[in-house]
Amino acid sequence: MRQEIERKFLVTGSGYRNGASCKTYRQGYIVADTHRVIRVRTDGSKGYLTIKGPSRGASRTEYEYEIPLPDAEDLLERMCIKPLIEKVRYTLVHDGMTWEVDEFTGVNQGLCIAEIELEQEDQRFSLPPWVGREVTADPRYYNAYLAKHPYNTWEHKD
Amino acid sequence: MRQEIERKFLVTGSGYRNGASCKTYRQGYIVADTHRVIRVRTDGSKGYLTIKGPSRGASRTEYEYEIPLPDAEDLLERMCIKPLIEKVRYTLVHDGMTWEVDEFTGVNQGLCIAEIELEQEDQRFSLPPWVGREVTADPRYYNAYLAKHPYNTWEHKD
Repeated sequence: MRQEIERKFLVTGSGYRNGASCKTYRQGYIVADTHRVIRVRTDGSKGYLTIKGPSRGASRTEYEYEIPLPDAEDLLERMCIKPLIEKVRYTLVHDGMTWEVDEFTGVNQGLCIAEIELEQEDQRFSLPPWVGREVTADPRYYNAYLAKHPYNTWEHKD
Repeated sequence: MRQEIERKFLVTGSGYRNGASCKTYRQGYIVADTHRVIRVRTDGSKGYLTIKGPSRGASRTEYEYEIPLPDAEDLLERMCIKPLIEKVRYTLVHDGMTWEVDEFTGVNQGLCIAEIELEQEDQRFSLPPWVGREVTADPRYYNAYLAKHPYNTWEHKD
């Protein structure tokens, strides 16, 4: 169990790609409510089962367990809300802090979100030039929300 | 992932206790629907997270993972439907087959269920003398049902 403190931003350019390491995720939700989330994820070589409690500001309790890849693929297929979420995650360091940028594909094509994980809610950090509007408090940008409302169905994209 | 084939019976005496090994379980449900169950369990020394798919006859797909005991206790407290289920499980061998008998305590006090796990749905086995009516097909006797409808609230007990 760990406390996850995360801030999210829309992305305005592709500057994050240069020198970033890159991974492809496929993930789905067995449960995707506002107060609890049960997520299954594969990264091509490993599977993960994650339980998240309710969000409080930028904080959320998270329990994550590695599970066998065939189990994860089976759970995605049989137990998760469709369509699944597919994205490419770029990981990079900016001014001493690790950023993750998710480029969504499939039904969420066009959406790109940058996340930074913090030790404390009020921690200061510098914004990279390719970072736009903050969306931490906007539940539409939760991956669990996207599982039920894919980006290609949104009327107002910004 | 494994396929669980299980038959359940009410219990009519206490003959199963003799020579059985005994464990105390505390368990709860993050989700307890007819088509999916997410269970957290502790046995005093270990924690488990279990996902079950829909039941088909006596069969059900089950994914079970050991998790750290403090995580399991935390999940029981913070994420599971209350009241939790508490029971003592007796495990014994009868005529070459393993039986598990659950004596429920707390809000399910008075309920006692025997279970046998099979390799195949049509597998033959002999019934111990302390076994009564079969309840495999009765969803009231699912632990996930008891989480929402404890035995002490049932109008008709049999």
